[in-house]
Amino acid sequence: MLRGGSDARAAASVTPAFSLPVRVYYEDTDAAGVVYYANYLRYLERARTEWLASLGHPVAELERVHEIVFVVRRIEVDYRRPARLSDALDVTVDVEVLRGASLTLLQHVMRGTEVLADARVMLACVDRTTLRPARIPIVLAEHRKETMP
Amino acid sequence: MLRGGSDARAAASVTPAFSLPVRVYYEDTDAAGVVYYANYLRYLERARTEWLASLGHPVAELERVHEIVFVVRRIEVDYRRPARLSDALDVTVDVEVLRGASLTLLQHVMRGTEVLADARVMLACVDRTTLRPARIPIVLAEHRKETMP
Amino acid sequence: MLRGGSDARAAASVTPAFSLPVRVYYEDTDAAGVVYYANYLRYLERARTEWLASLGHPVAELERVHEIVFVVRRIEVDYRRPARLSDALDVTVDVEVLRGASLTLLQHVMRGTEVLADARVMLACVDRTTLRPARIPIVLAEHRKETMP
Amino acid sequence: MLRGGSDARAAASVTPAFSLPVRVYYEDTDAAGVVYYANYLRYLERARTEWLASLGHPVAELERVHEIVFVVRRIEVDYRRPARLSDALDVTVDVEVLRGASLTLLQHVMRGTEVLADARVMLACVDRTTLRPARIPIVLAEHRKETMP
Repeated sequence: MLRGGSDARAAASVTPAFSLPVRVYYEDTDAAGVVYYANYLRYLERARTEWLASLGHPVAELERVHEIVFVVRRIEVDYRRPARLSDALDVTVDVEVLRGASLTLLQHVMRGTEVLADARVMLACVDRTTLRPARIPIVLAEHRKETMP
Repeated sequence: MLRGGSDARAAASVTPAFSLPVRVYYEDTDAAGVVYYANYLRYLERARTEWLASLGHPVAELERVHEIVFVVRRIEVDYRRPARLSDALDVTVDVEVLRGASLTLLQHVMRGTEVLADARVMLACVDRTTLRPARIPIVLAEHRKETMP
Repeated sequence: MLRGGSDARAAASVTPAFSLPVRVYYEDTDAAGVVYYANYLRYLERARTEWLASLGHPVAELERVHEIVFVVRRIEVDYRRPARLSDALDVTVDVEVLRGASLTLLQHVMRGTEVLADARVMLACVDRTTLRPARIPIVLAEHRKETMP
Repeated sequence: MLRGGSDARAAASVTPAFSLPVRVYYEDTDAAGVVYYANYLRYLERARTEWLASLGHPVAELERVHEIVFVVRRIEVDYRRPARLSDALDVTVDVEVLRGASLTLLQHVMRGTEVLADARVMLACVDRTTLRPARIPIVLAEHRKETMP
């Protein structure tokens, strides 16, 4: 589903649960004149961090109070069009699955209404000490309804 | 296939077509004490570059002589175990598909015999000027037999 | 002058000509739990870029209209206190020298009123094609008075 | 002294105490087609790490056995000529000062016999737990004679 061009555009056309503006600087680009492919993953993680903070649960609080951290288990990224120096991007976050200790997010990197990249990011909630799977705190799971399409 | 733990181990246990040693430095790690997830993509690209050079076709030559560049269209990465500061890693390259203007590689990030991450990387060969799909040069396609499992 | 702890604090206590808020994400930190030393240079460049844009001269316009780019010739950075994950920083820009083709900036990385790092950055204005020194455009030089202490 | 072009060339012309070969990949470059200025600091740190390892004192051992870490207090970098994609560089390390808890290194980024960048890096040896200054272990200080010009 994520792979189909038309579906991806459809998914991106609805209002995302969260969106972070990101500016492209020299640090993000490479000698091909475009944003280096690994740097999209930096953008995606910034948006996830700010999304959690926007829900009232900054990463530091989840770690200190709930003693959990989210770790990335798998990513799938489709690069559709290149981002360039000085571009004003928006990086979105939508919840696809939130169940037990698992959280799967759909994220898009947009330039205006153009989808530059789609990503599916599968995260595991783990105990910060033992690193074993830990149930996602109820305070976060409650946001599921609002943030799911 | 790439996703199954046992298959991934099997795939990694055969001799890869190419392998690049990589050392983990502070620049690669994050405050969680492990290699930052985006930085695996830097390792993967270094290995692809050295693989092409090992075939006698450095990136600069492909661009200048054959007027082509490879661009990443899609990546899938499974993060299995974390890499840490000072680890000595090996990053492998195997050809899964080479056809027309498409090249799909399977890559592993190994620490000794442990698979830390698996990746499937789909690249398109494009004309360096028009950025339109371009047939992979015959000199490169000929290596297919040797480098495919 | 930049090196003296007390002077540095004095320099930072006056209102800077420009200040950019920056959040610390995992991508910026290393296994020592602090912002990796090279990444301060990324913050400094973001602030310079936004400072130029705030003066009405975004990098892209300087390049296209005035056919110039600024290149870093020398940096001096004093690292005073470490920045950490989730810190809210401010990165400042003040003009020290603007003369002919030379621009020297003083920049600070602040956490509230604490100076985490001071930098002196010497830039050369060069013709985008020949890369030879080029006079800084008058439209930019005119801002000197406002932005100098 | 470091700043003078002729002196810098002279300093670089003698055999350095240590030199690390580094290849330039896409990850290192920016949209200006050259190595991004912050990434030279990554090269410099790789060379320092391998220099310590070459003396028989890898970073991990210094931390575990001697309970010390080196932190960067100040850097000065002169950017002389740009490094480009695919360049084969050498990054050198020479000891300028080693005294008490202080270590000052002179480092060069070379392309063949061309000096692309010079750096002076001032490090402090600190206790890994208290982060207070700690005397540089005698085993390391003993290398001073061999590695000083």
